[in-house]
Amino acid sequence: MPPARDPSHLYETARAGDRAALGRLLSLVERGGPPAREAGRLTFAEGQADHVVGITGAPGSGKSTLTDRLITAARAGAGRPVGVLAVDPSSPFSGGAILGDRIRMQGHALDPEVFVRSMATRGHLGGLALAAPEAVRVLAACGYRLVLVETVGVGQVEVEIAGAADTTVVVVNPGWGDAIQAAKAGLLEIADVFAVNKADRPGAEETRRDLEAMLDMNMAMGAWRPPVLSCVAATGEGIPELWSAIGDHRAHLEAAGEFSRRRDRRLVEELRGVLVARIEDDLRRSQSGADWENVTQALLRRETDPYGAAERLLSGASRPGSRPG
Amino acid sequence: MPPARDPSHLYETARAGDRAALGRLLSLVERGGPPAREAGRLTFAEGQADHVVGITGAPGSGKSTLTDRLITAARAGAGRPVGVLAVDPSSPFSGGAILGDRIRMQGHALDPEVFVRSMATRGHLGGLALAAPEAVRVLAACGYRLVLVETVGVGQVEVEIAGAADTTVVVVNPGWGDAIQAAKAGLLEIADVFAVNKADRPGAEETRRDLEAMLDMNMAMGAWRPPVLSCVAATGEGIPELWSAIGDHRAHLEAAGEFSRRRDRRLVEELRGVLVARIEDDLRRSQSGADWENVTQALLRRETDPYGAAERLLSGASRPGSRPG
Repeated sequence: MPPARDPSHLYETARAGDRAALGRLLSLVERGGPPAREAGRLTFAEGQADHVVGITGAPGSGKSTLTDRLITAARAGAGRPVGVLAVDPSSPFSGGAILGDRIRMQGHALDPEVFVRSMATRGHLGGLALAAPEAVRVLAACGYRLVLVETVGVGQVEVEIAGAADTTVVVVNPGWGDAIQAAKAGLLEIADVFAVNKADRPGAEETRRDLEAMLDMNMAMGAWRPPVLSCVAATGEGIPELWSAIGDHRAHLEAAGEFSRRRDRRLVEELRGVLVARIEDDLRRSQSGADWENVTQALLRRETDPYGAAERLLSGASRPGSRPG
Repeated sequence: MPPARDPSHLYETARAGDRAALGRLLSLVERGGPPAREAGRLTFAEGQADHVVGITGAPGSGKSTLTDRLITAARAGAGRPVGVLAVDPSSPFSGGAILGDRIRMQGHALDPEVFVRSMATRGHLGGLALAAPEAVRVLAACGYRLVLVETVGVGQVEVEIAGAADTTVVVVNPGWGDAIQAAKAGLLEIADVFAVNKADRPGAEETRRDLEAMLDMNMAMGAWRPPVLSCVAATGEGIPELWSAIGDHRAHLEAAGEFSRRRDRRLVEELRGVLVARIEDDLRRSQSGADWENVTQALLRRETDPYGAAERLLSGASRPGSRPG
């Protein structure tokens, strides 16, 4: 295998500080297949980040600017290396890196301790949900042990990716509609911290109150009540307080013994996702026509019951029109 | 196979009106294994109920009494046969039928057009989630095409079972705490109709208002806004209105083209559940030690990554301490 595509060589080089090698390693993970498996295997044990922070919200809520500010706050604080994964499934770019995000985060372009990577979807969204935690581990294993994951909170997979962080920040904007939209997108359930961004606009206080009222009434809360913080990412106002709340949440998880329990749960969830993907993949590859589509269609036509359908899928022996024995 | 345990014979007899045969058929389904598969296969095509109504709420909220009243309302209306499935995973009874429910619903004991069946868990709750939709199909195929499914809304599986109805009624009692508890249990998300039962007690109006406020603020609602109805199941007050709202919801689904779409989605979900259960079952049976427990423990010890773990599970060739190649 040429060194430029050999996961083991890339990992070694990336760990030694070669950013181009790290970029190529992340590309391997993004692309899937055996090299991705090898990269995942190599980085798994070492790939435990100190803190994974998810940042999500509607398009236009100012997530990228906010992420940029949080990088600054993190670098100013403990000074640890920061890895950023910008997950944008809706991007029309296919190169794996989105220029726009790089430009927006250019304030850190010269900081060797900051690595920003955009991931675009290749094929189905589900693949992205599987690749994201692997990419986080690659970043962590290569020394970026604080990882920010930015996603557009508009669909189930995006919400899932953002929710698979240790601490999830949900960004909303002033205006009643935004809080409602966040609720509809399922963002309230995954929020550990709320950021009311663009808080210099009218309605910020009302949005804060709306969120607090929702928290009063409807959240299945445990010991942690998500704080609601106002900020203006464009000017940096309120960012230190937001960053401090993010740190508080991590400290709370640790103190409650929840930090590793949460990670363990996510890992088992990831295994389930991999299992289902592997099985669907096997079915898709099989030459006998036993594909998911045919079998579910037969199920929906009530030609076979769920157990018969499962049988056909698992035996890989479906023929159109065949009935389970 | 003796006729008393032959699914095909039991189905034929049950369809002809033999209630004992229907009871035995449901026992087969509940017990699982090949006879259950055969019973499921036989009843699948004919097992499409006209309307499946889920009724759930906290223990003590008066669900059984309410269900009893709804049976009366249904019988008084179109006069169709009514099947009732009372799912109580926490029951200590192992006989498959819980005397208590039968006694509570004794007003219908002499009505040959009402069939009440209690299902208790045998083994794991997941099994019950798989058996419940099959039991509904058995009831429907045997002529009980209106099926009420009563569950205790206290855990994920129970909520899942209740939510797998065409129309889900969430029962709460007066008092602020109850509405909050319902929210925490995830019942707000699955509710198509709210019933504030025991509405002759203090606080009923406040509970209604709380629910309406939650609906105003936080539900990912589509075109249907769940109505909140007050009733007193013990006296029958408000039951006609509740029954009518349940019918309205069905009519709405039908008019919106959502009725069959929802059922199709549930069927595919059921297939996924069956697939996962089948795979876990295969793994459990395999003699090579490749069980879920060993592999997930190895994963949580970070000895293998999720892909390696999936490989071990799917190949069925796990040996303690072995590493994926």
